[in-house]
Amino acid sequence: MEETSALTLVRRLIIVAGIKKNEEGVIKRMIRSELVIVGGNAGGLQAAICAQKHQHLKDIIAIRPEEKALVPCGIPYIYGTLGDVEKNILPDKLFGDAKLKRGEVASIDRKAKTVILKDGEIIGYNKLVLATGSNPVEPPIPGADKRNVWFVRKDFDYLEQLASAMDSARHIVVIGGGFIGVEFADECHKRGPEVTIVELLEHCLQLICPEQLCVRAEDALRDRGVKVATSNTVKSIGGTDKVEFVTLESGEKIECDMVIIGIGVKPNTKLAEEAGLEIGPTRGIKVDEFQRTTGLDIFAVGDCAEKYSFFNSAPIPLRLASIATREGKIAAANLYSPQWRNIGTLGVFSTIIGETAISMAGLTDAEAAKVGYYDIVVGEAESASKHPGTMPGAESMRVRLIFARRSGKLLGGCACCAMTAGEFSNILAACIVNGMTMEQVALFPMGTHPWLTASPLAYQLTDAASNALHKVKGVAA
Amino acid sequence: MEETSALTLVRRLIIVAGIKKNEEGVIKRMIRSELVIVGGNAGGLQAAICAQKHQHLKDIIAIRPEEKALVPCGIPYIYGTLGDVEKNILPDKLFGDAKLKRGEVASIDRKAKTVILKDGEIIGYNKLVLATGSNPVEPPIPGADKRNVWFVRKDFDYLEQLASAMDSARHIVVIGGGFIGVEFADECHKRGPEVTIVELLEHCLQLICPEQLCVRAEDALRDRGVKVATSNTVKSIGGTDKVEFVTLESGEKIECDMVIIGIGVKPNTKLAEEAGLEIGPTRGIKVDEFQRTTGLDIFAVGDCAEKYSFFNSAPIPLRLASIATREGKIAAANLYSPQWRNIGTLGVFSTIIGETAISMAGLTDAEAAKVGYYDIVVGEAESASKHPGTMPGAESMRVRLIFARRSGKLLGGCACCAMTAGEFSNILAACIVNGMTMEQVALFPMGTHPWLTASPLAYQLTDAASNALHKVKGVAA
Repeated sequence: MEETSALTLVRRLIIVAGIKKNEEGVIKRMIRSELVIVGGNAGGLQAAICAQKHQHLKDIIAIRPEEKALVPCGIPYIYGTLGDVEKNILPDKLFGDAKLKRGEVASIDRKAKTVILKDGEIIGYNKLVLATGSNPVEPPIPGADKRNVWFVRKDFDYLEQLASAMDSARHIVVIGGGFIGVEFADECHKRGPEVTIVELLEHCLQLICPEQLCVRAEDALRDRGVKVATSNTVKSIGGTDKVEFVTLESGEKIECDMVIIGIGVKPNTKLAEEAGLEIGPTRGIKVDEFQRTTGLDIFAVGDCAEKYSFFNSAPIPLRLASIATREGKIAAANLYSPQWRNIGTLGVFSTIIGETAISMAGLTDAEAAKVGYYDIVVGEAESASKHPGTMPGAESMRVRLIFARRSGKLLGGCACCAMTAGEFSNILAACIVNGMTMEQVALFPMGTHPWLTASPLAYQLTDAASNALHKVKGVAA
Repeated sequence: MEETSALTLVRRLIIVAGIKKNEEGVIKRMIRSELVIVGGNAGGLQAAICAQKHQHLKDIIAIRPEEKALVPCGIPYIYGTLGDVEKNILPDKLFGDAKLKRGEVASIDRKAKTVILKDGEIIGYNKLVLATGSNPVEPPIPGADKRNVWFVRKDFDYLEQLASAMDSARHIVVIGGGFIGVEFADECHKRGPEVTIVELLEHCLQLICPEQLCVRAEDALRDRGVKVATSNTVKSIGGTDKVEFVTLESGEKIECDMVIIGIGVKPNTKLAEEAGLEIGPTRGIKVDEFQRTTGLDIFAVGDCAEKYSFFNSAPIPLRLASIATREGKIAAANLYSPQWRNIGTLGVFSTIIGETAISMAGLTDAEAAKVGYYDIVVGEAESASKHPGTMPGAESMRVRLIFARRSGKLLGGCACCAMTAGEFSNILAACIVNGMTMEQVALFPMGTHPWLTASPLAYQLTDAASNALHKVKGVAA
């Protein structure tokens, strides 16, 4: 204790003097910056952008260990669509006038208001934003240490090695049938090898989609030649040195020469924890509604930060780049005083398998019940994505909405299968965050066009709401 | 006066007896229906659907003069994309259990609560919905009575004749560069002939789009081979019997063998006016916030009804199928008691020229000033429609938003050019009707996906709002 205090004192004296000693013992001037951002991916980058735009800050340092940052949601697409990791890079120029420093932060000295890098360099901050992201969950599967077992790491070199390894793979087993697993499976398959997804739950995407959408996604995967094994887990990974097969819980043995594990992420909070910042129930850094951690002048954003539900403010384990950027903006706005409240996190997802786009916003039925909405009303509608249905390229688009019966409010919804499903989920998000009721959604003042949307007489959003109303009203009002 | 009263009395006696005499003097039983809908296009059809769905009405008669109803927004697409009027039909089966009657209503007897058809048939109603639509505006251009001058009429046979006539046309002049004119020009050109648009204003689409979008639309038209003559009008249409040329206000003479006039519509209110119903300032049937006319138990919906601005409730001349269907729903819900309020009409449009989709929601700068928002803040953003920008098919999508400076509320916005622009305008509509401010839009909880949307770091909606904020905040908050 005493020793630590003494060391700290020495360090502070060095800081006050504005100097520091690096690993080689060379003393050089310490950098000090108004805003230090630890992490340079989606959340950190957005904080850097908004601190410049809205706070007019010039003196910003973003520290990131990676030489090149990746577009997080683009990672699966490296392997089929894009073909090359280089095509999935976040351009550093987005940092604008913020200084981008390559390095790894080893610790935070909250009293001294400095971060200490692994190479010994010390950087002082007035405001600190932690955007340390997340790491893949590594399940304790026997044999997971064999060669050619891969995780979905946001690391350029690692992902490049994965691409090379994939080129000689014949059969890949993807463990995990969530969005990442499904997207990886489809993209890897495009590259050549056979692919089998193994998913613990009854269906792929089950945690975020209603069953009928899960089934459609699985059908789309199978149509494209991806094998899907659900209600199953990988019990062990076999092979002498390199992967040769996996053994499933069901007893089945699948011969394969590569395994990709994509079963989720865990927040990277080591730095925060060691600095004594509080950690929340889903293991993210605890933050208040202004993205402030429990440490003075320290904010946390993105995957490393705890998320709180839009619906009931309960902690939720939801980690997406779109959420990270939103938090980056909020933190930047609140650096000097609480300006923008994070009203809570809403899950808004989309993906596409072949031509089958799927999107979701808000709560699933199960999540609604968990939040306390036991009594929900479901409204569904399906119609052509263009109108009349004879327009070239018209596809059938299905929408399913869930409303709270009592308040009538829209809680969640999903859409498939047209290419507009992505933006459609943002219409749903707008309706949800504004607390629109089934009556209001039924009367949504949508614009329509033959090439671009469904018919005004069969617009899926308003029709699904209208169908929900029909259920609750029973007879004439 | 006395005579009329006597006649009316006789008619009422006949009605009471449940009989009527047709033109040939044959007496037959009069039909009486709980709900009579005059007009079977978008608004009337939607009223029929919703009266069944939400009021559980079985006894509905919809009367329409046309044998086949057309998908209104699909009409321009008959001529290029669809190729055939038959492919642009509203299926009658949508009427469900409502009886569809072909006929033309000649008058309404409000006291007797009947409508009298041209063939003398009398149909009694308890509730009446007028959905009589609109007719094309016919400008007094000398020579407009020549052969091969056409209007955009929602009439199957007429549009079929237009298609035949077009097959032998070499050069078509389209008068009017609004949505309909632009879409017709592009589609006619696809069919073969040369096409020139003549537009009175400085730009095509000027009434609904900011200048930069108009220019993009015009560029797209020209790229596709359509000639565009703006700030100009057709002074006269020349030719011995059939169209041979038009003379422009500028003096220019354009040789052509066909003219299509698409400069707007006027509400078809003859029936309502003759029945003594009040007419509003934009010449639509006056309705209250429940779509009730000034006549007892008579509602009006769609193009024939007056519209009132969402922003200030002032009458506005905005007529779209999407608006008609919304009013159809409202009227159906309010048949027996005021249930659903029409909170006002919001303009939400989209179109596409080639690959250039354009969409708009809410007010333009000029309209905002007219409503009293003299002080607006514009925020713009442009980025790839997919992410990373290296994704196949990624296009640049531009968004422009206008906010009221004082309240911060989103008043309007537009987007181009990706295919998602249509649904994007509906996100804007959701933000506008919910009164979202620039801060709220900047923090919109969007979902993103590489194939389906822009990057979360460059999502056009949030970025445009953020850029507007940047303008107003000036320095750190």
